[in-house]
Amino acid sequence: MSDSANHMAALHDVWMSAQLVRVEQALSDWVAPAVDLAPVLSQAMRYAVLDGGKRLRPLLVLAAAEAVAAVDEKSLQAALRAACSVELIHAYSLVHDDMPCMDNDILRRGKPTVHVKFGEAQALLAGDALQALAFELLTPAPDVVDTAVQATLCRILALSAGCHGMAGGQAIDLASVGKLLAIDELHTMHRLKTGALLQASVMMGAACGAVSPEAKLALQEYGAAIGLAFQVVDDVLDVTADTATLGKTAGKDAEQDKPTFVSLMGLDASKAYADKLLQQALTALEKTGLSNMRALESLAYMVVNRVT
Amino acid sequence: MSDSANHMAALHDVWMSAQLVRVEQALSDWVAPAVDLAPVLSQAMRYAVLDGGKRLRPLLVLAAAEAVAAVDEKSLQAALRAACSVELIHAYSLVHDDMPCMDNDILRRGKPTVHVKFGEAQALLAGDALQALAFELLTPAPDVVDTAVQATLCRILALSAGCHGMAGGQAIDLASVGKLLAIDELHTMHRLKTGALLQASVMMGAACGAVSPEAKLALQEYGAAIGLAFQVVDDVLDVTADTATLGKTAGKDAEQDKPTFVSLMGLDASKAYADKLLQQALTALEKTGLSNMRALESLAYMVVNRVT
Repeated sequence: MSDSANHMAALHDVWMSAQLVRVEQALSDWVAPAVDLAPVLSQAMRYAVLDGGKRLRPLLVLAAAEAVAAVDEKSLQAALRAACSVELIHAYSLVHDDMPCMDNDILRRGKPTVHVKFGEAQALLAGDALQALAFELLTPAPDVVDTAVQATLCRILALSAGCHGMAGGQAIDLASVGKLLAIDELHTMHRLKTGALLQASVMMGAACGAVSPEAKLALQEYGAAIGLAFQVVDDVLDVTADTATLGKTAGKDAEQDKPTFVSLMGLDASKAYADKLLQQALTALEKTGLSNMRALESLAYMVVNRVT
Repeated sequence: MSDSANHMAALHDVWMSAQLVRVEQALSDWVAPAVDLAPVLSQAMRYAVLDGGKRLRPLLVLAAAEAVAAVDEKSLQAALRAACSVELIHAYSLVHDDMPCMDNDILRRGKPTVHVKFGEAQALLAGDALQALAFELLTPAPDVVDTAVQATLCRILALSAGCHGMAGGQAIDLASVGKLLAIDELHTMHRLKTGALLQASVMMGAACGAVSPEAKLALQEYGAAIGLAFQVVDDVLDVTADTATLGKTAGKDAEQDKPTFVSLMGLDASKAYADKLLQQALTALEKTGLSNMRALESLAYMVVNRVT
């Protein structure tokens, strides 16, 4: 690495550590801290969300908010709430995804999955309650976050989580097991299944500040590119990493006969494709014309170069 | 019935029929009409929502909106969206509730339940997607519904659906099977499990127009009373009605050894309690000082006198 690259990486580490502290604290404060009436549900919700995860989606929200200079108190609060809300949607989707009727996985982030620990019924409810909580976080009193921002954030999140986003992608995924998908069908599935929420994270961050239509469009391109890159890398890691490193069961895709980028393109071409998507993301950032894009840039590298 | 009571009942029938047509049409337009990418998910979502249900919650929203004179175009649109959104939350909760890991029921509204018809995985996803869609409906473009109203509606709905509302009540319900609950514990469970969403329906309707703090408080009392009355009547019907009339499996509660108002208070006392709650609801309406409460009044009678 050059000196300036080293300097940038160090700056990013400082930024990221600071943001992660904020996010972990906020999640711990906001996720069912004391539901005395239903203690098991509260425990299951906290177990699903706390002490785990790379928090990539919250970091994307906060990085995008920084890029559009969302720095006044209300904007900062909006961005933190948005960051936590996307993580709650992500967490609930993992809880439901791991259940026996879906992927039937017993290990997540190196721990027993929620239904293994708390039973299927509580896992189902915990997922449901986490989705509701995501929207609750986005809609505090009007003096905390402007209602226009609240409405925009709810809309972006709802669209990315529902049948035209994450849930739709998961339904395609279900239908595709054991089938030979064309590469464009695989793209569509992942654009919805993982890409939609990653892109939404970027756009929710951007919605916390002022952004021109051109910059918005470029940020959408950035979000789409890293959303897809994330999945390509996921498929690569499913083949190249081991279960201990991943914290979840490796080799699952091949075992379940799921189509992946690796199974369709091969390993080397998949790696090259991830790099190409990284370049697309960086090019899109340049097009935004925004001044403070260091965090978004670093996160793009992080998505592609991650080892877990 | 007296002539004036007859006249009122007839007026209510006309009002209700008109509202039901609006709600059914809106649900049909808005619930996943063409998710070409995930056709089974779309079908499962529509199956869960359309062609069934009394639409009590949407009617409560629209009746409350009428009571607070929400009559301009944006307010009408807000109320219709709110009406559909509470029904989507209700519908998703039934889909998940019927699943094998929860109540394991195969019959709902006289038809096979969603997981019987589409499989457990699609049922899980359909429920998840319906919850997201509820919030999507509440957050259209700002020129359709004022963003301040959007934010309020999302907040009320999220709170009533999550761990401090419906999902919390379901978790208590799960934990109570086979246990001897005290009557106040049973109250708490139902206040959350069914009461929260019914009360939210009233408050969301009220949020579509202008309402004084006093009227708001009285409407909350009304919502709490009919919310509880609904569950008391449910418990009575579970004992007195048959499966064909109910469209769902009768006698389930006793079979599953669930505590109910009937098991704790007896049948006659439960019926008397429902009537007392009806009177509380009507008294609360008088306290609102609002002028157009006919629909809310009729719905209170409907909740208590229903036979299915």
